Amino acid sequence: MSEHISKQFDMELETIRTRVLQMGGLVEQQIIAALDALSEGDIAKFDKVIADDVHVNSMEVTIDDDCQHIIARRQPAAGDLRMVITVIKTITDLERIGDEAQKIARMGKTIYEAERFQVPRFREVKKMGQNALRMLRRALDAFARLDPTAALELLEADQHLDDDFAAEVRQLITFMMEDPRTITMSIDTMFISKAIERIGDHAKNISEYVVYLVKGKDIRHTSIDQLKREALGDNLA
Amino acid sequence: MSEHISKQFDMELETIRTRVLQMGGLVEQQIIAALDALSEGDIAKFDKVIADDVHVNSMEVTIDDDCQHIIARRQPAAGDLRMVITVIKTITDLERIGDEAQKIARMGKTIYEAERFQVPRFREVKKMGQNALRMLRRALDAFARLDPTAALELLEADQHLDDDFAAEVRQLITFMMEDPRTITMSIDTMFISKAIERIGDHAKNISEYVVYLVKGKDIRHTSIDQLKREALGDNLA
Repeated sequence: MSEHISKQFDMELETIRTRVLQMGGLVEQQIIAALDALSEGDIAKFDKVIADDVHVNSMEVTIDDDCQHIIARRQPAAGDLRMVITVIKTITDLERIGDEAQKIARMGKTIYEAERFQVPRFREVKKMGQNALRMLRRALDAFARLDPTAALELLEADQHLDDDFAAEVRQLITFMMEDPRTITMSIDTMFISKAIERIGDHAKNISEYVVYLVKGKDIRHTSIDQLKREALGDNLA
Repeated sequence: MSEHISKQFDMELETIRTRVLQMGGLVEQQIIAALDALSEGDIAKFDKVIADDVHVNSMEVTIDDDCQHIIARRQPAAGDLRMVITVIKTITDLERIGDEAQKIARMGKTIYEAERFQVPRFREVKKMGQNALRMLRRALDAFARLDPTAALELLEADQHLDDDFAAEVRQLITFMMEDPRTITMSIDTMFISKAIERIGDHAKNISEYVVYLVKGKDIRHTSIDQLKREALGDNLA
């Protein structure tokens, strides 16, 4: 590859990496806005999150297109190819996170418009939301810095989030049994918590792609114990 | 490309296409087994679905690997490249469908082991399950026959499935308010229905990749009305 073309290629790779982080930033903003709107009951803010999802979708299509052009024109191999494939997969997960943020906004709007305030468990929901947001930031940071150590952290964080979700469901069931008037509100809260749990899943997926990117090793479907053993092996090596 | 290499390349493309359909078949079997186990309360069948998910995951990793080798070695362009990218995306959705089938099995097992039989709404759940299974078959068929017309069908089918899910939730809320002893069982049923609804989403995603594959056109995030107008345009052209 000539030096001129090689420089263009590097710029193209840098461009898609930057766009992934921009898309990640946009999705973070969507989650923050949806969670804020939940605390404030701000219908306009819910509406903005719902409307802004088209920008998330549009970024996915653009970056996907860029990736395919790079593959067709530059015929990347090895690490560069893994980068492009990683970007294609990462933007899919980011787009799904965007969808979950939009769902949270839709459900939040429904709750406030129906004036269902009897069981405001939004403090627990917000806490889960902050955890999921932290996971997303960690995953995007790992992508930016090509850091494979995030995957083990996020696999554990994801288990905690799943456990928090299960505990939330049990608590809501208790409330519903004590006071059946809280059922509808509790179901809405449950689905919002579910959306947050899914955001954590997607953040975990992204961190696994980064391991693949850096090590050429596919660690999806690897248990925490196995990952810990391998990390220990890496440290001893 | 020499004729010899060109033939090898065609065989490699044919191989990954076949493997996608095999993976699709395996995932179909998982859904069928999970739904049958729900009707029968067959714990052994639940356990088998839960255990067999590793085979689904393993197929995803294998096919993903094949795709990356093809891209690196054969440097496909145009339609062949779209095929490989489509396979990479399709197997991700198939793997997620496999996860949903495993979740249905885990939740079904929990229901039967806790002997929660008060509200057997499994007939409605099974109906939703059959619809989602039909959608998956349609999507795999569209992939096999490179048929772009499935996308519009599945976009509509997915909306119906979402509507059925919403109706199911409202019905379960009614039962729960009438008899709070049914709350735990109803929540379990709700999550099973949610998993089925997600299977439909993934089937719809696959049909959209096929349109991209055939027409080089990304129709994700396109509304039903827009798709209908375009289909009409295609027919008049």
